[in-house]
Amino acid sequence: MVAIGIDLGGTKIQGVATKGDEVVGEAKVATPTGGVEAVVEAIVTCVARLDAPASAPVGVGAAGVVDTETGTLLQAPNLAGFDGPVPFGPLLAEALDTRVTVDNDANVAVLAEHLMGAGRGANDLLGVWVGTGIGGGLILDGCLRRGPGGGAGEIGHMALVGTTRMCTCGMVGHLEAIAGRAAMEAEARRRHAAISAGTPTLMVELAGDKRMKSSVFAKALDAGDAVVSELLDEAVVALGTVIASAATLVDLDRVVVGGGLAEKLGPSFVGRIEQAVRSRLFVPTSPLRVLPASLGDLAGALGAARLSDL
Amino acid sequence: MVAIGIDLGGTKIQGVATKGDEVVGEAKVATPTGGVEAVVEAIVTCVARLDAPASAPVGVGAAGVVDTETGTLLQAPNLAGFDGPVPFGPLLAEALDTRVTVDNDANVAVLAEHLMGAGRGANDLLGVWVGTGIGGGLILDGCLRRGPGGGAGEIGHMALVGTTRMCTCGMVGHLEAIAGRAAMEAEARRRHAAISAGTPTLMVELAGDKRMKSSVFAKALDAGDAVVSELLDEAVVALGTVIASAATLVDLDRVVVGGGLAEKLGPSFVGRIEQAVRSRLFVPTSPLRVLPASLGDLAGALGAARLSDL
Repeated sequence: MVAIGIDLGGTKIQGVATKGDEVVGEAKVATPTGGVEAVVEAIVTCVARLDAPASAPVGVGAAGVVDTETGTLLQAPNLAGFDGPVPFGPLLAEALDTRVTVDNDANVAVLAEHLMGAGRGANDLLGVWVGTGIGGGLILDGCLRRGPGGGAGEIGHMALVGTTRMCTCGMVGHLEAIAGRAAMEAEARRRHAAISAGTPTLMVELAGDKRMKSSVFAKALDAGDAVVSELLDEAVVALGTVIASAATLVDLDRVVVGGGLAEKLGPSFVGRIEQAVRSRLFVPTSPLRVLPASLGDLAGALGAARLSDL
Repeated sequence: MVAIGIDLGGTKIQGVATKGDEVVGEAKVATPTGGVEAVVEAIVTCVARLDAPASAPVGVGAAGVVDTETGTLLQAPNLAGFDGPVPFGPLLAEALDTRVTVDNDANVAVLAEHLMGAGRGANDLLGVWVGTGIGGGLILDGCLRRGPGGGAGEIGHMALVGTTRMCTCGMVGHLEAIAGRAAMEAEARRRHAAISAGTPTLMVELAGDKRMKSSVFAKALDAGDAVVSELLDEAVVALGTVIASAATLVDLDRVVVGGGLAEKLGPSFVGRIEQAVRSRLFVPTSPLRVLPASLGDLAGALGAARLSDL
């Protein structure tokens, strides 16, 4: 049976059509910034391009906190115009005239890594997605943990002390405010432009006025740029601290790290995070491994396609 | 049927005999510092004083990381002479000639608060015990979470950035190194005695050369002592940060805070922690409550007595 998976991110919508483990179609469209209706329309376009049977069930992984019972998006700071709860699943089901299941984008990505990627075989798995923001998903005893409010796994909003940087969610001192791509971009631009004590950085020179893509971070790092190096050092410490805390709280045997920035920076970045985690664990002999995610950009959509099986 | 519960802490061994929810016997002995054999002997003495049937099953909550399958104490930094894994359950079962079940002391305390205390009715509950060290226990979907290595819930060893204080476990920057009673005692003595820039504190004057009990913290705070006030402010921030992170990671509907220090400082201390948690949550409208534990000193032993039912 064909199932459709949609990964609804802050910048793009990735769709796949799958038949069991096989991918039989792929399509990608930009995420519109015109609000809920425009996003529903864009997903309808994306699904049409997949050329799947009209009755195929659709799973959506969306960037935000999801009430999976009702398909409501409770909070989605990275989607423009999604203020307050949005009954996204029902709206999309009506537009597509088929069964729609909605979950958090990081949850579906960790589901895919658990079923067919770097998390295969792990009974207790944390997925960490370092991209524009930082998402996370948690598998405990083989099952996706959602929690009573549907917000479990949101590792990007775990708290750190000793920082005053503002998070996209409006709170101060969350991981995402230190180690998310957008937060590091803002900090790099601030340091570059600071009057009297500015530190010119290749990051801003390469990106210009455009969005500072993950590839800019990788290029600036290769060129020995001091600012990117400092920002990533801080990000590694923050990620290591939070992942170690997560591993200590729930006890884990594996962590996979993916997302646009982690992919561009490659396995050495994930290796540095593993070292930072290990130096903070309560049980230093823990068999915990921190591995690069293996399904790349398609993880979210692949996991979303499995939602109708759950 | 009578069941026996033993709470094996760093300073005392608390025993209860129970019949369902009713307590039919209590006994308390000091924890010997002479190593494993002496502790087994002390528990045998404590059990004898409970005057229960010889065949009554015994549950033990022990301060440390426990392999609950085998009853092995893997790590117990607060018990003198317990270096490396100790087959504590089998040793005690032999000495008592009855069935013995061992779990972490914080786990059994949260089990008791969940079954009959301030955590009653909560499906997802974190227990935080602020005493000599900081213990924790986690109930997810109504069940005690142990995790693959048996170390789940060890919130005292969740990591913080921006601190260099050494934890009892040998790592740097864990919660217990900021907010545990023993860590705060050490820091108060350091500040009091610091050459040239020392800050005299009532805490040291009240405690003298003896262990700085929790009641000393409460008295110094009432008297307006600046050092205790600073140390507790730091502890509240650290506890708030870590509890908020835990709530964000797994999604919780209740947290109970107990332990010797929390009890002596009273509900206002727990109220301050709740405020600190709330200001760091990803979902500020979360129904999460942070409440004082309600079973006091007996929580551990009462929960241990329930282990044979699990």
